[in-house]
Formats: sequence, C-alpha cells, structure tokens
Amino acid sequence: MVPHLITALTGPINELEQRMLESMPAIERWFRLEWMEHTPPFYTSVDLRNAGFKLAPVDTNLFPGGFNNLTNEMLPLAVQASMAAIEKICPEAKNLLLIPEKHTRNTFYLANLARLVQIFTLTGLNVRLGTLDESIKEPTDIELPDGSKLTLEPLLRTQRRLGLKHFDPCTILLNNDLSAGIPKVLEDLHEQYLLPPLHAGWAVRRKSKHFELYEDVAKKFSKLLGMDPWLINPMHGECDEVDFQDGAGLECLQTQVDALLGKVRRKYKEYGINEKPFVVVKADNGTHGMGIMTVRDAKELADLNRRTRNKMSVVKDGQEVTQVIIQEGVPTYERMNEAVAEPVVYMIDRYVVGGFYRVHAERGIDENLNAPGSSFVPLAFAEPTQLPRPGVKPGASAPNRFYMYGVIARLAMLAASYELAVTDPNAEVYA
Amino acid sequence: MVPHLITALTGPINELEQRMLESMPAIERWFRLEWMEHTPPFYTSVDLRNAGFKLAPVDTNLFPGGFNNLTNEMLPLAVQASMAAIEKICPEAKNLLLIPEKHTRNTFYLANLARLVQIFTLTGLNVRLGTLDESIKEPTDIELPDGSKLTLEPLLRTQRRLGLKHFDPCTILLNNDLSAGIPKVLEDLHEQYLLPPLHAGWAVRRKSKHFELYEDVAKKFSKLLGMDPWLINPMHGECDEVDFQDGAGLECLQTQVDALLGKVRRKYKEYGINEKPFVVVKADNGTHGMGIMTVRDAKELADLNRRTRNKMSVVKDGQEVTQVIIQEGVPTYERMNEAVAEPVVYMIDRYVVGGFYRVHAERGIDENLNAPGSSFVPLAFAEPTQLPRPGVKPGASAPNRFYMYGVIARLAMLAASYELAVTDPNAEVYA
Repeated sequence: MVPHLITALTGPINELEQRMLESMPAIERWFRLEWMEHTPPFYTSVDLRNAGFKLAPVDTNLFPGGFNNLTNEMLPLAVQASMAAIEKICPEAKNLLLIPEKHTRNTFYLANLARLVQIFTLTGLNVRLGTLDESIKEPTDIELPDGSKLTLEPLLRTQRRLGLKHFDPCTILLNNDLSAGIPKVLEDLHEQYLLPPLHAGWAVRRKSKHFELYEDVAKKFSKLLGMDPWLINPMHGECDEVDFQDGAGLECLQTQVDALLGKVRRKYKEYGINEKPFVVVKADNGTHGMGIMTVRDAKELADLNRRTRNKMSVVKDGQEVTQVIIQEGVPTYERMNEAVAEPVVYMIDRYVVGGFYRVHAERGIDENLNAPGSSFVPLAFAEPTQLPRPGVKPGASAPNRFYMYGVIARLAMLAASYELAVTDPNAEVYA
Repeated sequence: MVPHLITALTGPINELEQRMLESMPAIERWFRLEWMEHTPPFYTSVDLRNAGFKLAPVDTNLFPGGFNNLTNEMLPLAVQASMAAIEKICPEAKNLLLIPEKHTRNTFYLANLARLVQIFTLTGLNVRLGTLDESIKEPTDIELPDGSKLTLEPLLRTQRRLGLKHFDPCTILLNNDLSAGIPKVLEDLHEQYLLPPLHAGWAVRRKSKHFELYEDVAKKFSKLLGMDPWLINPMHGECDEVDFQDGAGLECLQTQVDALLGKVRRKYKEYGINEKPFVVVKADNGTHGMGIMTVRDAKELADLNRRTRNKMSVVKDGQEVTQVIIQEGVPTYERMNEAVAEPVVYMIDRYVVGGFYRVHAERGIDENLNAPGSSFVPLAFAEPTQLPRPGVKPGASAPNRFYMYGVIARLAMLAASYELAVTDPNAEVYA
C-alpha cells in the first residue's frame, strides 16, 4: 500500500500543471526534437522541490543510487528503457561491467546495486561487478540482508580494454561518481563504451555549470509554454576560491548571497509570495548531501562556527571545497502526514521509469533532506509518470502531478546532456 | 484479481523454457542485431498455442484489436514503446490520424479503439479518428458503454495528403485490416507515414507467405539455441484456386492435408507423442477467426456439408476464398479452470507490452478460439513478459512462461517484418 500524500497545492503550480497537460503534444514533440540533437545520459535521477508557487530541480545525479526505492511495478519500464538504451549504444553487447561505489557496507546502496544488476540482467545482458577497491584481489561475495549475494571482482586492465577475468564487456557502466578523482584504470579506454563518461564524475563536474545550462533549457521550454522561466528555474550564483577554514573568499560569498536574496525577494514581491527567502550554499562538486548549508541572511556567513566550517570544507571522499554554488532556496510544501517530502525522479535513457519521495520527519521545509547519517523514508510514486489524466481539476490528481514532475526532471536531464557535451574534453574530435 | 492458470506442463516445453532463460543474453542480442537490419511493424499481436510438447504462433495480426484486454499496469509500457516508435518514425509529429474498422457497433472493438486513442494521447500526440465509412459526412459521436465517447470524422483527401478538417497528420495509423481491398483515398500518399503499409492489409497479405518466412526465422533462432525448429514452428502447406462451393481444387487440398498429417505423425512418433494429429485449413487471407476448419483425415474433405462450404467460401467483408493454407494443428493445453485457453501477445514497435489469454469454455483444444459470434473471456497476463526469474523450476513460474511467450511472439513479429520487406511493391525504389 502506498499512502496518500497530504498536500494541498494552490496558485501558480496548479496553473503550470494545467498548462503542461494542455500542451502535452507540444511538450513531447519538443523533447523528441531535442533528443535528435542531444544524447541523453545513460541514467539520471533528479531531486525536485515543489514550493506550490514554483517547481524546480535542485540536484541532478548522473550516477544514481536508490533504484531499489522504486516500486516493483516500475521494473518492466526500467527494463524496456534499458533495452532501448543498449540498442543505441552497443546492440552487439552480451556483457555489461558495472562499477559500483566502494562503500559496500551500506545495505541501502547494496540494494540499489542488486536492483541495477536485476534490470540489466532482464535487459538480456551478462552483468558482473568490477570494483575500484584495490584491496579486493579475488572475487568476493557480499551478502545482502535478504539473503541474496553480490560478487565483487577485481578489475583486469589490458592496454586497450577493461574487464574481469574471462569477461570482456562491450559497455562499462559507472555507478561510482568519481568524487575521489579519475582512477588510472578507467583512462584511455577507446574501444569500449564507458558510461557515463569520465567528465560526468564529480572530479570534473560542477553544479554551477549544470544550473547555468539548466537555465538555458528552462528559458527555451518556458518560451514554448509562454510562461516565466523562474517558475521552474532556481536562480543561482557562484564563488571560486572559497576557503571555509581560513575565511578566504567569504566576501564573494556574502556579496553573492546578498544579491541572490535580493533577486528572490523581488520575485516573491512580484508574485505576492509572503515568505522569507533563503538560499542554499553548496559545494560545487558536492554529492551525497554533503557540503550544504541554508542561509537566510548574508551576515550569518561572517560568523560561522567551527562545526559548519568543517562541514563545508570537505565533501565525499575527502575532497576539499573551494568552489561553491549559491542556489535559490526552494521550500518543499509536500507533506506525508506531518513530515516534509521531496520528489526524486528516475530516468533511464530518455524515459522516466519511476520515482519516490524522500520523506524526513526531523527536517524543515528549507533544509536538505538527503542528509548523510540521518535517515529518510522512501515513498515510491504510486503511479507511473506516463499516465496523466487531462481534464481532472488541477492539483487534485497524483498522476497529473507525476507527469509534471517527469517533465521538469527531463528538463534537468536535458541540461545534463548539454553539460556533458560542452564539458567533453575530447569534443574537438567530433566537431 | 487475476485467477491462476491451472496448467501442468511437462516435457519439451519445460526444456525449451529453461534453455530460453539460460540463453537470455544471446536471445536479446540476437533480436537487437535483427532489428538493426529489419524494421518492426508499428504494432503486432500474435496468437500462440502451447501444446506442452511444442509452442508455436498460429496467427500474426498487423492491425491488432483487443488492446482493451491488457491490464492497466501494462499501459505505461505501451506508452513508452509508442514513444520509442514515434521517435523513429516521425519525431516532429504533433498529430496522429487513426483509421479504424467500420464495424463500430461492436462495443469490444470500440473499447480497443478508446484504448489506442489513450495510448497515443499519452504518447503526446493529438489523436483523431478518420473513418473509411463514406456514409459519415460530419463528425459523429459514438457513445461507449462506460459513458465516454469517440468522434469519427470524414477523411479529407487532397492530392498529396490525407487528413481531417483542420487536422494534418504526420502519421496515419491503420487499425483497419483492409480485407475489403485498398481504398482509393489511401493510395499514393508519399508525404505522410501510412502505417502499417497498404500491402500489410488482407487485400494483399497471405498467411502462407508469413509462415514460410516464419519457418526461416524459426530455423535461424533454433540454430542459435541448438534445438529442433519444429518445437516452435507449425508446419504448413498451401493450395491456390480452391473453390469450396463447386469443389474445384479440392484434390490439391486433400493431397496437402494428407501429406501434412503424415509429416506431423512422423514428428509425433519421433517425440513419443501419443496424440492424434490434426491440421487446420484456413483462408490464406482470412482474419477475425473466419474461414477456418479443423481436419483430422483428408477423407473428411470429400464430403463437406453446405454449412462448412459456405463458411469456408467467404471471409471478412465478403471476400471470396480461393487460396488456403493448411497448417499443422497445435493443440492448446493451457486451461483456466475447465476452459481451454490460448495466449495472445501484444507488441508495439519491438517491445512486448502485454498479453492476455483467450479463454473459451465451449471449444475444444483443437479448435479456433477466436470464433466470430461466439464469445471468449479475456484473461490479462498477470505479469509483464519482461520479468523472467532464472533459477525457478521450469514450468513452475508464470513470469518465465510469459518471457517464453514474448520470445516466440517476437519471432513471429520478426517474420512479419521480413514479410513486409519482401512483399513491398515499391521495394525496387529502396534497393
């Protein structure tokens, strides 16, 4: 049973939902034409925030975990989408090598891995797991809480190819976001498909670039629908060379925060929104909910305590933070009983295959819900995003809301595809 | 609730199921490579017969009705598959013109139409219905039993394009099998996509051609799996210039029936099958379960009664029968309680999107269950065909059986794609 979300939404979001439903043929056509020019990432998850007065992506993940949180009913959709992806990438493929994160003591992550192995096996591929953990020298079984097991194997690199013992894959799929840098073993693989590409990893990727390109996408899309792009776009600024420990670069941060709060205030005034604006400062290469803080006044930055400075200085795999993005805070007004909920949408190739709500009882509407260490409850979308019901009263239909979430998530995915194209270090080769 | 099928299957089919599950990566790869060379029909349904000792397609429909019989859970799969199809055919499409059968008093057919309209609307297309019924001069509403309505509109033909008033489609989708011949209004449309092509209609198409090409496909596939193609191939013969009314050509029919019964008998002996062989004589251009009879002995043909002669002489839309196919009879050993059941698998583009069982309490295991006038009960597949469970005991798992059905149905679809290529009257143009 999936509980009902208690959310009364009013105002601009309902208008947006209605406009999207009315414009479905135009929207789907627009996406089809975009995908003729741009290649979607292999898989993507997008965190959304629905404030009632605006709906925006706040993070786009190109190495998604959490596939285990989708319902079983979504599995055939994921398999079919993965079939479509493999058809295009490497139709002659028999073998897929999946490279996971190293933190294999996290049973939630293991459940995600098991689900990915299942999806690609049902796609008709031999799937095996190769680990970047060099301490693993032999095939090693890891038991999952449900009694099933996964086998991690050491990678086997030859001059031109990467595989495992007796296993030569056509496609290598990363489920490791490369926060720690690009491992040598993955470099210079030109004969196999390595997906997502190395420059999609957090060693290279920057959130500010993504949201700069998302803004372009949001503008194009808003023109199609004849609406203000702000309704779907979180504004942002950025600062380079910030050092939270010694305080260097904090003037830039204060200036940017102040400017962005001012912009948000003006937008709130324009729309008659009676709320206190806030911004979210994030490590520009951060992930896993690390290196994030909420700021309501630039003055708060003058006097950060040691704990906050530590939190903001280092992100996953011990990477130091020097670049930050300052993002318009989008409160989430979805509730599951009394708890704050934020939707996460999952895509394989260009298709939305499901989603869930991150539900967090102890966090506020202006806080990051993907908090490391603390827990959230996943609440799978009860229905697929493919089944909107035109004609139903705006805001009253879960399928219609899911369709809208699917559209916004696809816009973020499209921005990621722009991003991967413009940040491709080998782009000249194809130009 | 979907009832459980009471079927104990033993013998070769379980071995086949096991071999298919073990060979999934090879099978899916084989299909991917075939689809690189061949274009799948837009949509297809395939009637299967599971005899326990063999599993074979007995009819392949390129203008499928019955989409209403699939479960609601399959709808997102159908939408996603239809998105993939439209992407390839006409990505810039906004409008789809659907041309239905004329028999719009059949509420089952209307429910199928409504479901097709729903699928293509959710794909993101403006869908309207244009009728070949020339008595309809104005947009005409037809009410469905559930209170919803469909609007049939007169076709509007210009020199180069076909559409409706204020409606210019990129793609025209036929759900009319053209048994009555090719209407002038559909000829010489070179600017729009007309799908399936005109030569897929029963005015041109012949079952014998389809099963000749299916035999080729079955042989190729059986080589991949290292098995006897007979396990998945219904043998067949054919006769031209048969006239059931005046008895002309009946010697050919007797000879063919006798020869085929002999071949089946030898196969039964080879496999130790203790059954009485039978063949099914069908109009080579027949559809809707019309023009079909079961024969156990060639002598039966010497003395056909008037009723049988009438039944075999004329098929849908009053078309006279002169060509017949003689097909190896494949008994169906699936049961729903006491009633005989035969699976029907539905595909859009290259993807299996669902299926159902035709369940008929008053028919025998050697009879056609798609009987006009009489009724069958559709029993939707409880689970999608994409979720086989390797490792489960052969024959014990519905998902594994559905996967096998999906494979055989896709082989028949592949044969149809070969068929449409070799029977294309404009093939020289592309050669």
